[in-house]
Amino acid sequence: MRVGFLGAGVMGAGMVTNLLKAGHEVRVYNRTPARLEPLVRSGARAAATPAEAAQGAEVVASCVTDTAAVRAVWLGEAGALAAAPPGAVAVDLSTVGPAAAREIAQACADRQIAFLDAPVTGGEAGAREGSLTVFVGGEGAALERARPFFDAIARVVHAVGPVGAGQAVKLIQNLVGGLNLAAAAEGYALALALGLDGERVLEMLGATTSQSRSAEILLDRVRSGRTEPGFSLANRLKDFVLALDMAHAAACPLPLTAAGSEMFWQAAAQGMGELDQTVVRAVAGRGERAQAARR
Amino acid sequence: MRVGFLGAGVMGAGMVTNLLKAGHEVRVYNRTPARLEPLVRSGARAAATPAEAAQGAEVVASCVTDTAAVRAVWLGEAGALAAAPPGAVAVDLSTVGPAAAREIAQACADRQIAFLDAPVTGGEAGAREGSLTVFVGGEGAALERARPFFDAIARVVHAVGPVGAGQAVKLIQNLVGGLNLAAAAEGYALALALGLDGERVLEMLGATTSQSRSAEILLDRVRSGRTEPGFSLANRLKDFVLALDMAHAAACPLPLTAAGSEMFWQAAAQGMGELDQTVVRAVAGRGERAQAARR
Repeated sequence: MRVGFLGAGVMGAGMVTNLLKAGHEVRVYNRTPARLEPLVRSGARAAATPAEAAQGAEVVASCVTDTAAVRAVWLGEAGALAAAPPGAVAVDLSTVGPAAAREIAQACADRQIAFLDAPVTGGEAGAREGSLTVFVGGEGAALERARPFFDAIARVVHAVGPVGAGQAVKLIQNLVGGLNLAAAAEGYALALALGLDGERVLEMLGATTSQSRSAEILLDRVRSGRTEPGFSLANRLKDFVLALDMAHAAACPLPLTAAGSEMFWQAAAQGMGELDQTVVRAVAGRGERAQAARR
Repeated sequence: MRVGFLGAGVMGAGMVTNLLKAGHEVRVYNRTPARLEPLVRSGARAAATPAEAAQGAEVVASCVTDTAAVRAVWLGEAGALAAAPPGAVAVDLSTVGPAAAREIAQACADRQIAFLDAPVTGGEAGAREGSLTVFVGGEGAALERARPFFDAIARVVHAVGPVGAGQAVKLIQNLVGGLNLAAAAEGYALALALGLDGERVLEMLGATTSQSRSAEILLDRVRSGRTEPGFSLANRLKDFVLALDMAHAAACPLPLTAAGSEMFWQAAAQGMGELDQTVVRAVAGRGERAQAARR
């Protein structure tokens, strides 16, 4: 299958590598062309513009950072939509919210191109190993045409509804996961404030109904002390903002999500945006740092 | 081992039955004597007062609803401390917070009785099956003396620190589990507000880093529609109040916990206190009920 791919960050690069391994013909565009070199050595063709990557493609896919970048690669000058052939399937793998998905879908429809919003979960490792989970919004027929593409990059593909539904499900997932992390961080901070063994308290959470995957991720980071991002605090915040925007557009109040996201804003305000999201523990309770300084 | 047991509610009755099965000699007191009948048929002896239950016991244990009940059975007129022999081990299995634990421990110390705060988790099923998890605060030597008692009622016993630490760990567990439930409820309510399949969205949470045991419990209740309490909303609220009290006594702010507990207060204000805690979903987002009415 001929694939045009827009975005060769850590996620995109992993996916392109798996598309090549599966025998697909891939043309890749990236804003910073230097990142294309390893992919070209693996058999991809470098494209100078999104339009060049999209020429003659059966599937054109984007995996970029934010809404501005999604608009740029699809709708901008020399954007993919200027060249993607009618009948192609356009896929956006980024997490940018349902409003952006519907905007790109409309522009695609005007050119007889089907659009799927298909945000992914599973992180860098999932992208590298081809074991991502994808939440797909859009028509079933378009998903079936793009099936070989998804088979190459993902382990699980959930068709969840019309255009925008993939984004909605992904943002709900991130909202719940982020709140579970903030909850574990408050529990951990309280344990420290009470003079308990914080790691042991996090460990014991796992044995009861208080268990969560986020608490396990937090425990892992508390133990190792590592702060380089698996998932950055800034990305976590971006998804909270998108989720609250989406909720408010549906007149749905989310007071817990609002309170939880403020913890991440506080950590960002203290300069921790580019660190792993689990550093949010530093602003929970009395603050792990303040606590450490008191000892 | 001679055991005095105070409290024959659903939790206490299960524990007494397991103590009898393990061959211990048990005298049971309950505020409502009628509830003792099935236990007496199983081999327990009924006591008319806590003091009578405590006479000659090696271990005296209480499992009651709240702080007032704990004070009454230990310190009240004809309370257990009036009769428990010096050298006995006093065990409180209730969830009442560290302040109450330290108060009873002090009264015990005045009579040469060792005290362990040992709140349990695992619910009614765990009590019935002897598979509870116990968080024990207090001296290791006292725990060792009471070991045959704990072996009969629990699968896992965590020694977590001095008197009060058992309560602290249990309240932190409940705080995190309660917040995870509130988070899943907000995610579910948002899914409904967006017209998505709420059950499916809850189900998909389990496949990613947004997984939590609380979300699984919520899904189970959404599917069955059952609202009779496994763990009542009123009990969840009681534990939030105790956790916030404990945190504030340690000058530890918990804004997320405060916001989450307000969701349960709101559900209680709408008359749902005696239903299962998972009905908190009815007040999340736009409100599941309002949503259902709109269709």
